[in-house]
Amino acid sequence: MSRQRATAFVPGHVTAFFSAHPAARPAAAGSRGAGVTLTDGVTVRVSAGGETEAGDGGSGARTIDGESGTIGAVDDALAELGATGVDVAVETDLPIGAGFGVSGAATLGAALAANDLLDRGRSENELVRIAHEAEVARGTGLGDVVAQARGGVPIRVEPGAPGIGELDGLPATARVEYVTFGELSTEEVLGGDTTALSAAGEDALDRLRADPRLPTMMDAARAFAREADLLVPEVAAAIDAVGEAGGEAAMAMLGRTVFALGTGLSDAGYDPEVCRIDAAGARLTVDGQG
Amino acid sequence: MSRQRATAFVPGHVTAFFSAHPAARPAAAGSRGAGVTLTDGVTVRVSAGGETEAGDGGSGARTIDGESGTIGAVDDALAELGATGVDVAVETDLPIGAGFGVSGAATLGAALAANDLLDRGRSENELVRIAHEAEVARGTGLGDVVAQARGGVPIRVEPGAPGIGELDGLPATARVEYVTFGELSTEEVLGGDTTALSAAGEDALDRLRADPRLPTMMDAARAFAREADLLVPEVAAAIDAVGEAGGEAAMAMLGRTVFALGTGLSDAGYDPEVCRIDAAGARLTVDGQG
Repeated sequence: MSRQRATAFVPGHVTAFFSAHPAARPAAAGSRGAGVTLTDGVTVRVSAGGETEAGDGGSGARTIDGESGTIGAVDDALAELGATGVDVAVETDLPIGAGFGVSGAATLGAALAANDLLDRGRSENELVRIAHEAEVARGTGLGDVVAQARGGVPIRVEPGAPGIGELDGLPATARVEYVTFGELSTEEVLGGDTTALSAAGEDALDRLRADPRLPTMMDAARAFAREADLLVPEVAAAIDAVGEAGGEAAMAMLGRTVFALGTGLSDAGYDPEVCRIDAAGARLTVDGQG
Repeated sequence: MSRQRATAFVPGHVTAFFSAHPAARPAAAGSRGAGVTLTDGVTVRVSAGGETEAGDGGSGARTIDGESGTIGAVDDALAELGATGVDVAVETDLPIGAGFGVSGAATLGAALAANDLLDRGRSENELVRIAHEAEVARGTGLGDVVAQARGGVPIRVEPGAPGIGELDGLPATARVEYVTFGELSTEEVLGGDTTALSAAGEDALDRLRADPRLPTMMDAARAFAREADLLVPEVAAAIDAVGEAGGEAAMAMLGRTVFALGTGLSDAGYDPEVCRIDAAGARLTVDGQG
């Protein structure tokens, strides 16, 4: 392959509710739950390393939004593909650490783009598994990668990588608005006792599977945030304000972020970011493919 | 729900090779194989029936490209959703009966759109199962529906509807060209002895899974068409011409159609239709959703 660059886009993913399912094997670990993938996402450009050659063990350049920066799971996935020497540029308009699955998106995007650039010949399921394992092993996420690979409104019916986990989806398209008030540590929440959280997540999933509709997902998400004791004051106030204005909003897990369907946050007087449900999921983009 | 119309888009799907796997239960029947989903596809508009009310057993209006016409599997899927009274308009630029999975696309699109319009509350997997069962029961296809639901370059690893079958994919984006020389009856081929065909299809799938790359898929597809004795002269000539011009082409199963990657057919002097690999798969579209 003579191309010098490959590019992938991976949608952001806000989790509405979840239960945590640790396992000894990262491929079998994961979460059950549901969420929404977004047309706002992460673009990953992978190019042949300049000073370091792929395969000699050295690491290529790493940038996040133009500034030098690394994401652990990205490097782990590249190592699995024998691709640590490539240069990786991660670009996103999404806030980092605020519940949009940016680390999972960057990892999956890097795996897709590096596989393409270096002609590694891995299938989609293999690349999703590699990214899922890297994310789980780093403790930065449990279910974002498999959801981002599918797109739409993914339901994680059983936890784990492709071939182990199981997915369904809500058939829906909608405008999505969101506002972020700051970061929340995924590692901290997932590293603590998740028993009560997971019980609430299982209840929410049962409700959604019995009635797979967007309003049911939003209502189950609000109940989950209360029962799992994850609500923060600014988020709770925004959810209430959207409800009072007749809309549907919920908290993005895990971030100080509220997301709403349609014009929910605008109607409640907020100045939100606006995007849509992403129908496609993670994909290589035309850039560099002619 | 007060909306009067819902719209879905479903990509066309050309099968590169396949093996047939009949079963008593339509959900468990299907095919293994691989193919390419296309940005050229089928748009299905479902609207509240005019003279007939949904649920009274009467059938609403049915059009294909603006002319009165019905597709059996579409009506069966709508019946399963209690939606026979809706009006259904199927529109496509793809040739019908030429190996693009138009009947499967129309069926899946009708299921998605009718579920949305009438708020039937079925999940994506349920709607794909309903469309797959309708298509299999009518004998008009075995694997198009599950492939069209996924998008990209789907590999049907195990046959059947979601929850029974299993999918993987080739991570690829590419320009696709195609030329059609006429129809080929899916029912006739699938209704005959498929033993030799399926043996060739299994060989092709083994090759692709050992090396999941687009050129390998195209080469396995050419070997399949020869071994299964499905090649027709115009298609064989076009495949040879593309190969002589340095490109990759294969026959679309089941149709008198040749498809090529990149500018393969143009380079060989044909005047092809041009589209791309469709990343998203079947989806509701914004029309009518605000």
